[in-house]
Amino acid sequence: MCGIIGIVSQEPVNQALYDGLTVLQHRGQDAAGIVTSDGRKLYLRRDNGLVKEVFLEQHMRSLLGSMGIGHVRYPTAGSSSSAEAQPFYVNSPYGISLAHNGNLTNAAELRKDLYMQDRRQINTNSDSEILLNIFAQELLKQDAFYVRPEDIFAAVEGVHRRCKGAYAVVAMLTRDGLVGFRDPNGIRPLVYGVRETARGNEYMLASESVALDAQGYRLVRDIEPGEAIFITHDGKVFTRQCSDSPQYNTCIFEYVYFARPDSIIDNVFVHKTRMRMGHKLAEQIKRVWPDHDIDVVMPIPDTSRTSALEMAYTLGVPYREGFMKNRYIGRTFIMPGQKQRKKSVRQKLNPLHVEFRDKNVLLVDDSIVRGTTSEEIVQMARDSGAKKVYFASASPPIRYPNIYGIDMPAAKELIAHERTEEEVAQAIGVDRLFYLSLDDLVAAIQKGNPRLRNFDCSVFTGEYVTGEAADYFVELEAQRNDQEKQKTGLRDAAIDLRDSD
Amino acid sequence: MCGIIGIVSQEPVNQALYDGLTVLQHRGQDAAGIVTSDGRKLYLRRDNGLVKEVFLEQHMRSLLGSMGIGHVRYPTAGSSSSAEAQPFYVNSPYGISLAHNGNLTNAAELRKDLYMQDRRQINTNSDSEILLNIFAQELLKQDAFYVRPEDIFAAVEGVHRRCKGAYAVVAMLTRDGLVGFRDPNGIRPLVYGVRETARGNEYMLASESVALDAQGYRLVRDIEPGEAIFITHDGKVFTRQCSDSPQYNTCIFEYVYFARPDSIIDNVFVHKTRMRMGHKLAEQIKRVWPDHDIDVVMPIPDTSRTSALEMAYTLGVPYREGFMKNRYIGRTFIMPGQKQRKKSVRQKLNPLHVEFRDKNVLLVDDSIVRGTTSEEIVQMARDSGAKKVYFASASPPIRYPNIYGIDMPAAKELIAHERTEEEVAQAIGVDRLFYLSLDDLVAAIQKGNPRLRNFDCSVFTGEYVTGEAADYFVELEAQRNDQEKQKTGLRDAAIDLRDSD
Amino acid sequence: MCGIIGIVSQEPVNQALYDGLTVLQHRGQDAAGIVTSDGRKLYLRRDNGLVKEVFLEQHMRSLLGSMGIGHVRYPTAGSSSSAEAQPFYVNSPYGISLAHNGNLTNAAELRKDLYMQDRRQINTNSDSEILLNIFAQELLKQDAFYVRPEDIFAAVEGVHRRCKGAYAVVAMLTRDGLVGFRDPNGIRPLVYGVRETARGNEYMLASESVALDAQGYRLVRDIEPGEAIFITHDGKVFTRQCSDSPQYNTCIFEYVYFARPDSIIDNVFVHKTRMRMGHKLAEQIKRVWPDHDIDVVMPIPDTSRTSALEMAYTLGVPYREGFMKNRYIGRTFIMPGQKQRKKSVRQKLNPLHVEFRDKNVLLVDDSIVRGTTSEEIVQMARDSGAKKVYFASASPPIRYPNIYGIDMPAAKELIAHERTEEEVAQAIGVDRLFYLSLDDLVAAIQKGNPRLRNFDCSVFTGEYVTGEAADYFVELEAQRNDQEKQKTGLRDAAIDLRDSD
Amino acid sequence: MCGIIGIVSQEPVNQALYDGLTVLQHRGQDAAGIVTSDGRKLYLRRDNGLVKEVFLEQHMRSLLGSMGIGHVRYPTAGSSSSAEAQPFYVNSPYGISLAHNGNLTNAAELRKDLYMQDRRQINTNSDSEILLNIFAQELLKQDAFYVRPEDIFAAVEGVHRRCKGAYAVVAMLTRDGLVGFRDPNGIRPLVYGVRETARGNEYMLASESVALDAQGYRLVRDIEPGEAIFITHDGKVFTRQCSDSPQYNTCIFEYVYFARPDSIIDNVFVHKTRMRMGHKLAEQIKRVWPDHDIDVVMPIPDTSRTSALEMAYTLGVPYREGFMKNRYIGRTFIMPGQKQRKKSVRQKLNPLHVEFRDKNVLLVDDSIVRGTTSEEIVQMARDSGAKKVYFASASPPIRYPNIYGIDMPAAKELIAHERTEEEVAQAIGVDRLFYLSLDDLVAAIQKGNPRLRNFDCSVFTGEYVTGEAADYFVELEAQRNDQEKQKTGLRDAAIDLRDSD
Repeated sequence: MCGIIGIVSQEPVNQALYDGLTVLQHRGQDAAGIVTSDGRKLYLRRDNGLVKEVFLEQHMRSLLGSMGIGHVRYPTAGSSSSAEAQPFYVNSPYGISLAHNGNLTNAAELRKDLYMQDRRQINTNSDSEILLNIFAQELLKQDAFYVRPEDIFAAVEGVHRRCKGAYAVVAMLTRDGLVGFRDPNGIRPLVYGVRETARGNEYMLASESVALDAQGYRLVRDIEPGEAIFITHDGKVFTRQCSDSPQYNTCIFEYVYFARPDSIIDNVFVHKTRMRMGHKLAEQIKRVWPDHDIDVVMPIPDTSRTSALEMAYTLGVPYREGFMKNRYIGRTFIMPGQKQRKKSVRQKLNPLHVEFRDKNVLLVDDSIVRGTTSEEIVQMARDSGAKKVYFASASPPIRYPNIYGIDMPAAKELIAHERTEEEVAQAIGVDRLFYLSLDDLVAAIQKGNPRLRNFDCSVFTGEYVTGEAADYFVELEAQRNDQEKQKTGLRDAAIDLRDSD
Repeated sequence: MCGIIGIVSQEPVNQALYDGLTVLQHRGQDAAGIVTSDGRKLYLRRDNGLVKEVFLEQHMRSLLGSMGIGHVRYPTAGSSSSAEAQPFYVNSPYGISLAHNGNLTNAAELRKDLYMQDRRQINTNSDSEILLNIFAQELLKQDAFYVRPEDIFAAVEGVHRRCKGAYAVVAMLTRDGLVGFRDPNGIRPLVYGVRETARGNEYMLASESVALDAQGYRLVRDIEPGEAIFITHDGKVFTRQCSDSPQYNTCIFEYVYFARPDSIIDNVFVHKTRMRMGHKLAEQIKRVWPDHDIDVVMPIPDTSRTSALEMAYTLGVPYREGFMKNRYIGRTFIMPGQKQRKKSVRQKLNPLHVEFRDKNVLLVDDSIVRGTTSEEIVQMARDSGAKKVYFASASPPIRYPNIYGIDMPAAKELIAHERTEEEVAQAIGVDRLFYLSLDDLVAAIQKGNPRLRNFDCSVFTGEYVTGEAADYFVELEAQRNDQEKQKTGLRDAAIDLRDSD
Repeated sequence: MCGIIGIVSQEPVNQALYDGLTVLQHRGQDAAGIVTSDGRKLYLRRDNGLVKEVFLEQHMRSLLGSMGIGHVRYPTAGSSSSAEAQPFYVNSPYGISLAHNGNLTNAAELRKDLYMQDRRQINTNSDSEILLNIFAQELLKQDAFYVRPEDIFAAVEGVHRRCKGAYAVVAMLTRDGLVGFRDPNGIRPLVYGVRETARGNEYMLASESVALDAQGYRLVRDIEPGEAIFITHDGKVFTRQCSDSPQYNTCIFEYVYFARPDSIIDNVFVHKTRMRMGHKLAEQIKRVWPDHDIDVVMPIPDTSRTSALEMAYTLGVPYREGFMKNRYIGRTFIMPGQKQRKKSVRQKLNPLHVEFRDKNVLLVDDSIVRGTTSEEIVQMARDSGAKKVYFASASPPIRYPNIYGIDMPAAKELIAHERTEEEVAQAIGVDRLFYLSLDDLVAAIQKGNPRLRNFDCSVFTGEYVTGEAADYFVELEAQRNDQEKQKTGLRDAAIDLRDSD
Repeated sequence: MCGIIGIVSQEPVNQALYDGLTVLQHRGQDAAGIVTSDGRKLYLRRDNGLVKEVFLEQHMRSLLGSMGIGHVRYPTAGSSSSAEAQPFYVNSPYGISLAHNGNLTNAAELRKDLYMQDRRQINTNSDSEILLNIFAQELLKQDAFYVRPEDIFAAVEGVHRRCKGAYAVVAMLTRDGLVGFRDPNGIRPLVYGVRETARGNEYMLASESVALDAQGYRLVRDIEPGEAIFITHDGKVFTRQCSDSPQYNTCIFEYVYFARPDSIIDNVFVHKTRMRMGHKLAEQIKRVWPDHDIDVVMPIPDTSRTSALEMAYTLGVPYREGFMKNRYIGRTFIMPGQKQRKKSVRQKLNPLHVEFRDKNVLLVDDSIVRGTTSEEIVQMARDSGAKKVYFASASPPIRYPNIYGIDMPAAKELIAHERTEEEVAQAIGVDRLFYLSLDDLVAAIQKGNPRLRNFDCSVFTGEYVTGEAADYFVELEAQRNDQEKQKTGLRDAAIDLRDSD
């Protein structure tokens, strides 16, 4: 997952982009980048690390101009080299920079086409560089002397024709303005907002509405699936639907885990959705186990707090915080002659024994992925004196890989893959396990926006809206294994065109 | 405030010290340092920054040996130069390194004495360098060929005689072992624990017991006020009371705010104390306002969660999380020609409007210091639609400066200084304000350990257990003003003996 | 001035390029860069600094592949930002990287054309980025599916048509091979060499033949004015004349000062040329001053040693080294509240008094530019006890600016600008001054290669072979003033597309 | 070898110390350090690297005060860790910092004594830390309330009693002033100079007089063997002989190779000495080979230039520069899977073939150590077309190790160790070899200062003036082997008390 932002302002945007990225930091802590334009030239800074690590005083001073885009990265398919930090840039045509949240599922094919048809060299493993070059090439085809909105929209249509997968995009033409668009399925979110100032209107595009809130922008609306927006350097706004078959298939995991609770995604308030999820899950428990003996409901911090609190009220059982999160986790260093040791969950969560002793505890988490962490937590609860340990997942069993930009493990590493709920319960060692049903999850979201009929639920169902062929998954599996290998290596050799510092 | 740690192990301690410091990081995020010994030589790394920023692979590799001490710093009196990161070191006698949590109130006088009587040059503004040299000088006086436990204890007695103020200390003699001690009032906390291993027993000293938990050490007990502990390089433990008038005067603010809830300080579990504080505060509200119209109780994250939850249950009112904390706050850069702009509270906390709209909200915080943040938060609650905004502080009004190691503002900057509770309520703009009484606070702690009769409550009462004269405060005020000035300067010029990198 | 290098090898080229650049380091100490290709991707590292400062272990490890180009920069027209370190890169078409020695005199016009006609954004002030884009655009026009030698040569023809000024170029097509070419006047040098190995032939292009020597390459020949060479990734060599009016106009200053004495430039051995220059200058002195009273001939190290030694022998007077060069000059720091202080010549050269005392000394330098250094040296000679101080310049009076890539001051800062030789003598304070005549200088070079009929002697004559209009000089003058201003600023704001680190 | 400097000024000394160290940089390029005092506190910066690499703007700004000392390091016995960069510091008594050129031959024993008798921990392998602690301990014994000159001198007497070996020292008492002294044999050089200014007199101590010249200080005189100088913070100068048996035994290698030619060492001008050495060597050749067939005399740059020029004049044969030195040598990187490759002499020196072709060449070098470089150079001369290659060493055969601070290889690695001159000639492949005789060398120096009767000539004779026992050499040999091993390791683990950055 990644976070993207774009601003057209009436004053320098460096600090605004920086602040916006810190608000989106939960979407990616791996790398960060900003490119700004003063209408004549671009200024770029990007590197691996958190926003506050990547941008130092000297970088901020060099990021000139009142227009720019930014990105925080969570590694997906492709390598994690600092060379692949976004935004990317091509100078032909017009000088275009681009940042992207999502994943192209036909990247390999596009890479070939770009070289063979368009003679464009792709120098990294990033599908974002590919997406940028497709957009650039489609824009070049318009052969416009001055870039007009219709040229931009025609280029986005071209992108929709050629690219497959999920993509929410911000792009910038150095002299002309800011562009944003979402794939025709609207899998990844993108909103835009406005701020009226004495100097004129200012506009922000962002992955989540919290980025708008924090800086006093008013949310205008979501960019629609397939739609594109073009905001000129001097603040004129143009939008157009660029797909002939747009349809909302928002990634359901945004609501489950990814988005901040104070965000509004496709017109649904995430916080309220999570409350409804907790409510429905509690109702289910009351239904299937009317005489339950749960003493306390306890969230596994931080995401599940909202659902857990609502569950506690619905069940009529006290809510307790029994795990303290260590917010300053460091690295585990490998000393010469030592093997890599895993950071145990104990170093991230510390149990408050008093909250567990002689109680039947219902632990609540947003989801169960590999199950290893859940298993460790359950054991900690028992070691802390819990009589019985129950577990509630505020989402259905995760059984299939994600191919739209969430860095999930391969299918065979998912604990619910080819396992029944009972088998999962046994595997993680709980006395009883409850999963939110997919119907309940969907209903919890639709209550906020009945217009949303479909979602990308592929990690639960194995059905992929963009209809990927089986061989894509084979390739993906291999790539993820490769990635693992690289991480154990000294350094990722795949450096690109930015200076290899 | 600062955090300290010391370990005598049977294997390399670098990673254990590092991990321990990350668990104590909440006690100081300003600087970090570790010194280890292999029994013959010391290895040191310290710098400004978080633990995970200060220690890189190359530093960890150079921190050799199975014994060491560590420190995380929160700036108190003195400058914030990286040169004053702890631990400090003197080579005479025996090669001693030392790290310290607290504040000496007679540092100026001791500095003079050290130069005039002992001919020891103090090269920084840090009172920890002074404390180290006092200890070194007292140890030198024992004139021991081989250092015996009685030499250590005699030296600590000397420290107690000469030093005034608060100090919890870990020190290391390069070839001999680890030393820990607390001032005779036991103002700052220090615990020790043991871990039995196949290779033999290992020992840890730490500011808080959570550091022991995270690495599987068993808490043995608190170091008593005035007591010293000496753990030899090969794992023999010696303890002795080194003061003739020791008395518990634990800093009451550890329970209110500073310590992690999962820590046990002077045999009192902080989490339960905070629950009792919430309970007593709710009882008080019920007493003075039996027909209250509070709709929801809402914590201001993170510290007040424990108290707020208990308040909600006692009041019989729903508990709600209405503020989202942005965990990735960055800097505000000053661009050429710009003025410093304050990071607003809005960038740190984002309100969930739905939780405020048309409700009477009781906000709960652990304490009110300057009042400016409280005022902003109250305003945010109103802007989010709250009908009425009430405020509960889980500690009494703070009216006096702290001189024992907590970096609090000067008296005149404290909102409750020379103000009644009603005046504070008005100043921060709430409809009603509740403070926990000091009696209730003390009772909430004593319930956990009735042996604790006295506390350092000076920030509430203005009574200082070490009986500082008025002129100390004049000097302190001046110094804190100086500090402010320095922060606006380009760089702290006061560099010490470590390389000025 | 700059130095360029390109290698097609049978094994990794990173170390070979690095070593080659250290040999060319005298041509530019301001910035350095290398880009390599493994036939599929590029790997780039460039930054401000000396070669040994720019390339650290981690950079070298990331520079993969058996083909690459490199550059050392001496700032000319344009800024000195690290963003303008070469090589530059464009991904369309084919992925081309390029490094360049020289200066385009119609850069402003080309920049406009590129954006208007070709829609290519130029993001730096560097004329090398312009040259690269012209080459890229001309190559794109060939519309070749696979790049053939004739496509390359046609593109170079296009460059010759569009670009004006001096340029010796190495470029690389990521998948195809190495390209080299010189402008039709051959102002800047470029040679190529071969090394036969068991694995096959390897080829090197370089600004000077010493780069070949140091790594065991055999000099094949100079690239001709207007000629291009294309060496494929697998070692096939193609050359063609790409200009219809090529003519040798080698920069005469290469022989006077710039090139290393052990280099062969356009088939002339520089060392022997400088000997002949010394001989002719001595002959002139004997002619105009048969009864001279010179006691010793003394070079101003290092360049003039060759000429001075020959002068001494021709004059029959002892040769003496009277100045010690301090090889470790550092910076002069500006402390707060201080003004910039000039590093005096005294810190660079220390006189050996014994060699001056009571002697008539003939100082020999390669040239006189601003005259300020000469004046200081003359004064030092007098202070050291010289009876009389004579001065010989092994080149004619420099009276006009250079526009072909040598960073010379504006005309009015040249001491010989609008001054007679007598006036210069007076200005620098010598008892007698001798300049080598332009005829003698030309003859000294032609003796090595009679084919060379013309040279770029513009700094002596004010005649520019590419026929620049007067307004170019006005603009240049302004730019150089700007540059001066920027240097006093905190930082060059003009950052380009590389990360602003 | 190392270079040391100390200044008591009337204004900030940071830049003056920095500039002074660049002038002494030829004495050590391995590490550099400066410590300054403002009369109350010290400010330190030291690290591995050249002066211009170690001191950046931020360091210079932090080096406050008008008094300070500096050091450039050439690694001798002991490790090359950055932790062992000088100056060193102890805070007891008085706060003393110290930098040192030389080598203590009884360091192991002193280290033991310091811990056993004085309880001082030595935390590095550096004998300079030992020397500092001996001085500190001897000064502490004086038990002075205010430090008087007689206390300093008594402490230096104590140092002379306890320390064995060679040492020229600058030290600083933070509040009191600057100290300088030389061992009773005066093996390492130390001079002092004065600069009269409007603000009062300023004083400099330095290893070589060139450091005085470059900043306008007037050389007063050498510090005598065994003598100490104390210059108070406010500019009063005290000197005293602190040894009862002082005697000049200046290291003869200072004249042969180490010192800059423009320095005056123990009242002898090095440049003139080297001229006399060349003259005497030429006279010897004329004597033993009156009908020699030498065509040209050619120095191997840079040191032997002075001798070679004088030889040419004495022999009546032309002087020629036939080797170009590459001044920008870089590193040879070890890529994964590769072995370390030696940087060949060819990359450092490039022959000018024209100067060798068909000539009988006499190569002149200052000395022959391992012989491997000489052998390569001889081969290069032959490859360049020389008919015959003769070789002259401007010093006698080096047959024994140095124990007074010059980093020479172990005896068995010296080519002349247990070899006759003929065998050496054969080993390096020359047609004829000439060594300057020790008598001639001594005479060449004494001509400049007849007072100098003895020298440390141990590398030629194996006689050590401080009478070291055989077992010292065994230990030394072992240590040097260890050092070799360490260099191949990833990193020197022996880090000291400075932060391990």
